[in-house]
Amino acid sequence: MAGGARDRGRSVTSRVLAILDAFDAGRPRLTLSEIAARSGLALSTVHRLVGELEEWQALRRTADGSYHIGIRLWELGQLAPDSLQAVAHPWLQELLASTGENVHLAIREGVEVLYVDRVFGRRAVPIVSRTGGRLPMHCTGVGKALLAFEPGWFVTSFLSRPLERFTPHTVTEPGRLSRELAQIRARGYALTHEEMTLGSCSAAAPIISDGVPVAAVGIVVSSRRVRELPRLVDPLLAATDGIARAYQATMVPATRPRQERRD
Amino acid sequence: MAGGARDRGRSVTSRVLAILDAFDAGRPRLTLSEIAARSGLALSTVHRLVGELEEWQALRRTADGSYHIGIRLWELGQLAPDSLQAVAHPWLQELLASTGENVHLAIREGVEVLYVDRVFGRRAVPIVSRTGGRLPMHCTGVGKALLAFEPGWFVTSFLSRPLERFTPHTVTEPGRLSRELAQIRARGYALTHEEMTLGSCSAAAPIISDGVPVAAVGIVVSSRRVRELPRLVDPLLAATDGIARAYQATMVPATRPRQERRD
Repeated sequence: MAGGARDRGRSVTSRVLAILDAFDAGRPRLTLSEIAARSGLALSTVHRLVGELEEWQALRRTADGSYHIGIRLWELGQLAPDSLQAVAHPWLQELLASTGENVHLAIREGVEVLYVDRVFGRRAVPIVSRTGGRLPMHCTGVGKALLAFEPGWFVTSFLSRPLERFTPHTVTEPGRLSRELAQIRARGYALTHEEMTLGSCSAAAPIISDGVPVAAVGIVVSSRRVRELPRLVDPLLAATDGIARAYQATMVPATRPRQERRD
Repeated sequence: MAGGARDRGRSVTSRVLAILDAFDAGRPRLTLSEIAARSGLALSTVHRLVGELEEWQALRRTADGSYHIGIRLWELGQLAPDSLQAVAHPWLQELLASTGENVHLAIREGVEVLYVDRVFGRRAVPIVSRTGGRLPMHCTGVGKALLAFEPGWFVTSFLSRPLERFTPHTVTEPGRLSRELAQIRARGYALTHEEMTLGSCSAAAPIISDGVPVAAVGIVVSSRRVRELPRLVDPLLAATDGIARAYQATMVPATRPRQERRD
């Protein structure tokens, strides 16, 4: 079998996955040597496997000889179940219509938030989150909205890790964040002000299904419009409630409580 | 090396890709035996490779033991370059605001259209296209809008293949489709009426960049609203023009014509 001695002991599948893992939002384009460096594989192995991946359109070579993720992987990724996203999308649209700013849907993946949908108009403030992107939980509206509704053991463990500072407004002191989470839990939504990026602030609320925070909806507006944020809370909570109810309705009856409340 | 005798001669990479290829929009959930049957691989091979793919979250096992594409592949797919989609999205939003119906963006992939973005409101008519889904070109608005602007040799080759009938209104006669394409080319947009699905009709126009149809925008409305379609053409063409201009502006200067028109 070809490939450098250092690749021994790794299955071919794990080598293919290591090549794909080399790509991320910060490095969406890589040369063969960069892929080798980031995957820890021998250049000869990378050369051979990238060729096969390119043929299948998992990777695509650009004019300058570097590679990026190909359309075939995007297409395949769209097959991941997205019942929540499908339910939520029209509600995101309605929030966009009332704000003209960025509205997004995020889920928790490990200790980060993963943005699974985003709608925005032409006048929206530029933001760092992108669909498919990840951001930390302690400094984003959706992250705080989700964190506040996680079980106590999760929050304790989360707060025991260092909290990175992104702007002078990022809350990095665990005690202060903990008090803020209690407040978010009590009122049902989170507000942030330039904690991730200078120039933007946000309102976010969780979508609670069967007591579990399955996702969060956030609205990001320019800091110049910070005074309008409180006004966006009611439409936001109406949307997350609506999504939660619509999502619950997509569940098979067996998972719903036997005695449904009538009101 | 494990795996049935019939897998010999296929590289491990090609086996991994064959497993992923087994999933499509029509079959987003598969059991191990179904993956084996669809990929042509031995069950023992499938069992081993699926285990590795599951560990990496490329696949995910559901409660009933079947598998679907996992969030990790979705996330990776989001790294495929989408400069056109990013430019187009706000324009799709504006079309949605003026129609409340489905608005989508599609590109040509081979002889099909691939839907790369879609926005829709709560009152939108249910449609068959989904982001990441493919449909034929001869019976969809976006497909006809793209086909009309492809070079003659491509259209001739396209028309020489059988055209599948989906409804009594699908145009399957090559001569008639060819005349319709000439009309679309002349006026700059396509209209369809229940050619893919009974109950829905559409208006679509291509985004032309450097003379090439790089994508098309389509609006799908309920057939009950067919009379409103002509009224949607002007906003549609304003959007595709706007997207083409904005997209052109994202290109590196070297690819733009040296003499820019002033008007």
